[in-house]
Amino acid sequence: MSDYDLVIRGGTVVTAADTMRADVGIRGGKIVALAEALTGGAKTIDAAGLLVMPGGIDSHVHLAQPAFGGPAMADGFETGTRSAIAGGNTTLLPFALQPRGASLRASVMDYHRQADGQSYCDYGFHLIISDPSPTVLGQELPSLVEDGYSSFKVFMTYDDLVLNDRQLLEVFDCARGCGALVMVHCEGYDSIKFMTERLEAAGKTAPYYHAVSRPQVVEREATHRAISHGELLDVPIMIVHVSGREPMEQIRWAQQKGLKVYGETCPQYVALTADDLKGLNMDETGGKYVCSPPPRDHASWEAIWEGIRGGVFQTFSSDHCPFFYEGSQGKLNPKARTSFRWVPNGIPGVETRLPILYSKGVAEGRITVNEFVALTSTNHAKIYGLYPHKGSIGVGFDADIVLWDPNRRETISQSLMHHNSDYTPYEGLAVTGWPVMTILRGAVVCEEGRILGAKTDGRFLKRSLSPYAVPSGRAA
Amino acid sequence: MSDYDLVIRGGTVVTAADTMRADVGIRGGKIVALAEALTGGAKTIDAAGLLVMPGGIDSHVHLAQPAFGGPAMADGFETGTRSAIAGGNTTLLPFALQPRGASLRASVMDYHRQADGQSYCDYGFHLIISDPSPTVLGQELPSLVEDGYSSFKVFMTYDDLVLNDRQLLEVFDCARGCGALVMVHCEGYDSIKFMTERLEAAGKTAPYYHAVSRPQVVEREATHRAISHGELLDVPIMIVHVSGREPMEQIRWAQQKGLKVYGETCPQYVALTADDLKGLNMDETGGKYVCSPPPRDHASWEAIWEGIRGGVFQTFSSDHCPFFYEGSQGKLNPKARTSFRWVPNGIPGVETRLPILYSKGVAEGRITVNEFVALTSTNHAKIYGLYPHKGSIGVGFDADIVLWDPNRRETISQSLMHHNSDYTPYEGLAVTGWPVMTILRGAVVCEEGRILGAKTDGRFLKRSLSPYAVPSGRAA
Amino acid sequence: MSDYDLVIRGGTVVTAADTMRADVGIRGGKIVALAEALTGGAKTIDAAGLLVMPGGIDSHVHLAQPAFGGPAMADGFETGTRSAIAGGNTTLLPFALQPRGASLRASVMDYHRQADGQSYCDYGFHLIISDPSPTVLGQELPSLVEDGYSSFKVFMTYDDLVLNDRQLLEVFDCARGCGALVMVHCEGYDSIKFMTERLEAAGKTAPYYHAVSRPQVVEREATHRAISHGELLDVPIMIVHVSGREPMEQIRWAQQKGLKVYGETCPQYVALTADDLKGLNMDETGGKYVCSPPPRDHASWEAIWEGIRGGVFQTFSSDHCPFFYEGSQGKLNPKARTSFRWVPNGIPGVETRLPILYSKGVAEGRITVNEFVALTSTNHAKIYGLYPHKGSIGVGFDADIVLWDPNRRETISQSLMHHNSDYTPYEGLAVTGWPVMTILRGAVVCEEGRILGAKTDGRFLKRSLSPYAVPSGRAA
Amino acid sequence: MSDYDLVIRGGTVVTAADTMRADVGIRGGKIVALAEALTGGAKTIDAAGLLVMPGGIDSHVHLAQPAFGGPAMADGFETGTRSAIAGGNTTLLPFALQPRGASLRASVMDYHRQADGQSYCDYGFHLIISDPSPTVLGQELPSLVEDGYSSFKVFMTYDDLVLNDRQLLEVFDCARGCGALVMVHCEGYDSIKFMTERLEAAGKTAPYYHAVSRPQVVEREATHRAISHGELLDVPIMIVHVSGREPMEQIRWAQQKGLKVYGETCPQYVALTADDLKGLNMDETGGKYVCSPPPRDHASWEAIWEGIRGGVFQTFSSDHCPFFYEGSQGKLNPKARTSFRWVPNGIPGVETRLPILYSKGVAEGRITVNEFVALTSTNHAKIYGLYPHKGSIGVGFDADIVLWDPNRRETISQSLMHHNSDYTPYEGLAVTGWPVMTILRGAVVCEEGRILGAKTDGRFLKRSLSPYAVPSGRAA
Repeated sequence: MSDYDLVIRGGTVVTAADTMRADVGIRGGKIVALAEALTGGAKTIDAAGLLVMPGGIDSHVHLAQPAFGGPAMADGFETGTRSAIAGGNTTLLPFALQPRGASLRASVMDYHRQADGQSYCDYGFHLIISDPSPTVLGQELPSLVEDGYSSFKVFMTYDDLVLNDRQLLEVFDCARGCGALVMVHCEGYDSIKFMTERLEAAGKTAPYYHAVSRPQVVEREATHRAISHGELLDVPIMIVHVSGREPMEQIRWAQQKGLKVYGETCPQYVALTADDLKGLNMDETGGKYVCSPPPRDHASWEAIWEGIRGGVFQTFSSDHCPFFYEGSQGKLNPKARTSFRWVPNGIPGVETRLPILYSKGVAEGRITVNEFVALTSTNHAKIYGLYPHKGSIGVGFDADIVLWDPNRRETISQSLMHHNSDYTPYEGLAVTGWPVMTILRGAVVCEEGRILGAKTDGRFLKRSLSPYAVPSGRAA
Repeated sequence: MSDYDLVIRGGTVVTAADTMRADVGIRGGKIVALAEALTGGAKTIDAAGLLVMPGGIDSHVHLAQPAFGGPAMADGFETGTRSAIAGGNTTLLPFALQPRGASLRASVMDYHRQADGQSYCDYGFHLIISDPSPTVLGQELPSLVEDGYSSFKVFMTYDDLVLNDRQLLEVFDCARGCGALVMVHCEGYDSIKFMTERLEAAGKTAPYYHAVSRPQVVEREATHRAISHGELLDVPIMIVHVSGREPMEQIRWAQQKGLKVYGETCPQYVALTADDLKGLNMDETGGKYVCSPPPRDHASWEAIWEGIRGGVFQTFSSDHCPFFYEGSQGKLNPKARTSFRWVPNGIPGVETRLPILYSKGVAEGRITVNEFVALTSTNHAKIYGLYPHKGSIGVGFDADIVLWDPNRRETISQSLMHHNSDYTPYEGLAVTGWPVMTILRGAVVCEEGRILGAKTDGRFLKRSLSPYAVPSGRAA
Repeated sequence: MSDYDLVIRGGTVVTAADTMRADVGIRGGKIVALAEALTGGAKTIDAAGLLVMPGGIDSHVHLAQPAFGGPAMADGFETGTRSAIAGGNTTLLPFALQPRGASLRASVMDYHRQADGQSYCDYGFHLIISDPSPTVLGQELPSLVEDGYSSFKVFMTYDDLVLNDRQLLEVFDCARGCGALVMVHCEGYDSIKFMTERLEAAGKTAPYYHAVSRPQVVEREATHRAISHGELLDVPIMIVHVSGREPMEQIRWAQQKGLKVYGETCPQYVALTADDLKGLNMDETGGKYVCSPPPRDHASWEAIWEGIRGGVFQTFSSDHCPFFYEGSQGKLNPKARTSFRWVPNGIPGVETRLPILYSKGVAEGRITVNEFVALTSTNHAKIYGLYPHKGSIGVGFDADIVLWDPNRRETISQSLMHHNSDYTPYEGLAVTGWPVMTILRGAVVCEEGRILGAKTDGRFLKRSLSPYAVPSGRAA
Repeated sequence: MSDYDLVIRGGTVVTAADTMRADVGIRGGKIVALAEALTGGAKTIDAAGLLVMPGGIDSHVHLAQPAFGGPAMADGFETGTRSAIAGGNTTLLPFALQPRGASLRASVMDYHRQADGQSYCDYGFHLIISDPSPTVLGQELPSLVEDGYSSFKVFMTYDDLVLNDRQLLEVFDCARGCGALVMVHCEGYDSIKFMTERLEAAGKTAPYYHAVSRPQVVEREATHRAISHGELLDVPIMIVHVSGREPMEQIRWAQQKGLKVYGETCPQYVALTADDLKGLNMDETGGKYVCSPPPRDHASWEAIWEGIRGGVFQTFSSDHCPFFYEGSQGKLNPKARTSFRWVPNGIPGVETRLPILYSKGVAEGRITVNEFVALTSTNHAKIYGLYPHKGSIGVGFDADIVLWDPNRRETISQSLMHHNSDYTPYEGLAVTGWPVMTILRGAVVCEEGRILGAKTDGRFLKRSLSPYAVPSGRAA
């Protein structure tokens, strides 16, 4: 009889703080020992030359969301989580979106029906509040937060999702009351709509004009507005998918004022630019890169790195929001060709998040490997109420592990991907560092791109309240 | 036959740049000569020991505006302009307010009917756009701008006036097209309403809670939003009645970015505080001081002076918005006693603006006398298209002059006032420096508080386009 | 035969990133296992209810430095390290000071003679360069860096230590060449001297004027100067013992520019104020608190916390620099009574550093316990080339551990201290959280204030080059 | 008998605040009248189509300074003032330099001997303090300030002039005591020397390396240091010849803190770049552009304009410091060819200052013509104690006037110059706007480049204390 179900031998364990040569002993899906040399183990894995890191937690993922009249998302839970584990992730936090007029609880149940038994990795849900009715805020939301859905997202743009300032304040206030963490998509609806109509009127309908219709000032304004609402009511907020210097500096300014404002950024803001949206020649191929906020420029990349290094951003997520490119239900669909307005917003990325950050961050010397772990796993767990079960390599943590080859060189390509979309926006990007094995609660679920797990492996995660959502006590 | 209708002898002429001993020769209502010693003059005035400064131009004055269901304003044009000249002013720029649904042109004509022949001093009109319909923006506004109404104001709060972001953008865009200057009242409607309802629900209805319902963060947010909209469309804007550090720093930040953002502040932000709204003991006497944005605190006074000295603010206006305090139509009206929400917003101040700024600014050593002239007259003329007819003591300028005794000590008191309101919020404030004579286009209209002019003296001023309204050419 | 020399059972292990319930297995002085439940162990310690944290590393400690004509230091290595272990520390980095004219190597050897065999805990040496002659910079320093003295300190003030700008540049340049990290004491010599003479001339000689003679602007100027020299030559620098907002903001500004500037602060800047220097009534009892930079005020405390939370400061050190208070060789010595100028600069603090930071930081909710570990141990190890042997609870690390009772309430008092000085400046300060056991490389050296170790326990630590000392590659 | 000695008819009078059509009546060398239409006049000048502006005051000019072993200056008072009036100036404030060891009073007398009877325009002297001995600070300086030498300059670099921090503090303190204004040349001596030696050791001796040896960080550090010294002692200071963003932002920061810090910039920082120092191909022709601080780059030009528009800079001076280019005593002298270190620092510019600022500032739309007057004349007069005799077109002012053709296009060329140097660094620069007549105290001294005055025209100006030198009362 062995002490351990699994022993990972010879690797270098990396946490958000430390790096150490240690074997990892796993039993019952949990890490039960870290030691110089562990004997035994029903199964052993040789991790010599590899980094043993906590599996990626991606706290910003869209799966199986409704089409709102446009094309359906390319990934549901099965393919989305499959892609996730191939990319070194072990937990996803997708969104359960409330359509306007619908019950929030019922919406959540819909997502459960799609996710439960259909996920290769563990998952929880953020809620998306599109209709903050008195019932939703007064009853459904507090009850759902209690049930482990301890964060939710609101939008300051998109026809079907936008909340006005009054609604934002009511939602923030509700969050304060029930201890939930609010994520905010900060772009100004009216400004975008105004710009869009003007551009269309001028015949500027190519995908590139998506970027023109929502410049940084529009994101900055909404960021400032969200920060102000949070300050007014003393509610901590997370500003998601920050794209460049202007919004980054708003968050930094707020943090220096002592406000509890957190920041997230994504691979597209250090690896794509608005020029990608020009396509081959201002043609519809630019549509592949349409997401919101749009990628900016190289100076923005540097601003994002400045924010990462300076602690402005706590999380690095994918904002995976996958569509097909080709076909009548793809980004290239006939309606989308008439105007950038109809190009579905979003790009796939759950599988490429870790390699892009590792390569541009760690391999190119911008961040340490410990910061990599913090940005891709530990901080997600701490901020979203998954800690201390998830988010580190330590005794008592779930044995969610990615074995990482820091020296492996790969070129990102659709042929390597496990998502359902028909393209990756990072096609051709050469990276250094690659996940070679993904372990979910002690079970190897992916090895060298081969899926070994099953879509019934993933479990729903009932989350605790976020310690980051505690008000500062400095209300206006 | 004399060369001059009037010669002002022996005074010290002060302009926005210079101070000089000079006689002033006036003919045909205009200044035609400045000289060491002028002989002749049908009439002469001995100004020995006095400052000879351009008459005050107050570019932020509310007169005869509709009641919107609450009490009527205490001042119409007759009493408002009477008070103005007693306070050393020679030009006012009140607002012609468009009620929702009304024609802008018709609204302007309404104000003309009230003002023409009823004004002791010269006047022009800013427009208030409450209903930016296609007709208003497409036809009426451009035509009115051409007719000399070259500036207009928009509100980000107040039930009857608030514009949403889309409307703000459309109005800004229209201003850009016709070269008009936009003034913006920056306070966030939704935030104020949210706070108001919460305070009322908690039984916090005393006038003091007016200040609590709209803290600086609410003004700052709206200021940032207006700046962003202006930046998006490359439209210069004037942020009016700035109350403290938070919005001041937004304007300074914008100016340092090279944006054409201008700032105005008012006496209440260096002479009153929110504590005044507490009244005798959180009673309704605090209502005397209810205006928006509310006065803040002593630290804010310092921030405002910092902005004045640092060039953040170009104009110092009164935001004269007078109501009676007593009586069923006063601030103390029965409905107003039920909640601060119903206390009319606004205080009288057109008559006390110059003494307050002179005393706290010049006499206490915070600004120079030349800066005083710039802040109270010259900059108003330049920014609002009155220059070079108004705004300085120079050859060719209208002979709009205030003779100022820099050493006169007075205590502000309702008994000294010429407005129609039954109180002054500055009761008891001791000041150094006082207007002893006001001259409008060469005619003495007020001397030592005695009104010598007639309500038919004032002329309507058709204004030029503002040189400050020219876009930077750096559109987003 | 047991697997482990020592097992710490039942405690909560805390690292700079993680918190976990785990037993710790120690063998050969090293941590060899972390596990849910470890069996065996030649010896076991019950840590139930306690935090198991890496022993404190204090990277700013003065021991046995020469008197320069004034009183001798109260602590040599024996008493200083004794006090350190009683305060939960396991490693000190005192200074080996080069007197002017002396050989640097010889000076180091002097300190070794005093430290070797006389230390209760491990230790390394920073060098203090007071005489950067060509021999020192060209030969001795590079050779010593290679020998494991990989950091050194320079002073911008003090008669016997001050370097001028030329010397600073030469030392910085030398550091760049040999990969050493430079620590800088930033206060402007000439300004202090000027102020001191002026104060003395005015008869202002009480200890309190020590604080007046070196206000924050003097520290800020020197901080900016050091940062600029580092920027000019692309040399990373550590600004030590930062006292308030002004210098803190310089460091933050530099960090935001992307410069490699690090910051250290100390207990005196969150627990003492300049008012303490007033003594009972501007008398010499204020001398107890004389240190440089001087403690500031409560607003500065907040600024320091802002810097701690915002990542401006990486390390929290004691700047232990102990003198006797009473006696002819104490702070109260006859010469010191003639002027603050002669009061020895420095206060004891190596024993109280951890409780003060834990109490004011963790217990009062300003920082997390993980940040506490980073600030008191991990970051010191990483920055000063002790990592990965020191600085964390992890496999392979030295078993340097403090067992911490997070709930223990104590009142700091001289009677609790193990230093040689006759007072503690924190007398009477109530704290929550206290070290109950200190373990050095697996051996219990202190328990509940009882010293169990021997002065021969401590080992000299040959340090690696600091990864923080790598130039940015962005030379001027 | 006419009322006026001279009447300037038909021009547009421009002051720092106003622009007006007015005739100017002059009697006894003073402006005695401004009027719509002046009759009489012993002499009249037709200024139709021209701007009538106050003659330029150049408060930063080096004439006849000693050679310190290098080449002599190209201009003494005769040629320097000749060049000045040809460039539209009527007053210069050159420096009276104290050589080390010399009496300050005696030094001033030396300059008087050279200047008196040898100057085409009026002049005063700033003192340069190179040797702040007790006698100088205790006796000579206060007495000279009383005699009308109310400002002085100190240097933070240059072998023969540099003061250390102690000396700076003593000089600042002395200035505070006698109400003088201190000008500071802010570049760090030690840093420059260090860089110079390193560059020379690397064989990098071409003139271009002058710019490399003193990058912006060196200027910024010294600027911060001077500001800090001024803050410590509550002494207003003027930072002269600011070259780019880094030092500009220090001054702005200080001003926003409420410190009395003023700024000056010069034509070379908006019209030359470091690339000019490369010469034809890193050859010695680059030496033509060697001045200190060195010109920077195009981004710095924009930073300087930002500072000009934002009020950071009050004065725009030439820093005229002329040398010959050719010849054994020129910039190309044999020793200078061995290293940039020996190239005399300084360029001619007193004649081109106004056209460059007018063209790039007013004609290109960056500043108003009133700001031009403030920057070139009025502010100099106010800051340096010449107001109200000098600095404006107003009653009672000296009739120091430049008639300016705003539409004249010229190309700057050595053939147009009236200085003694053999080149102008602005050769080939096309400008719009040109001085067509210069009037000194009522006498035409230059017309269309023809010198009509005599070298005996200029008078020494005994200056008042500067109102800008009054301490803030906020001493540290």
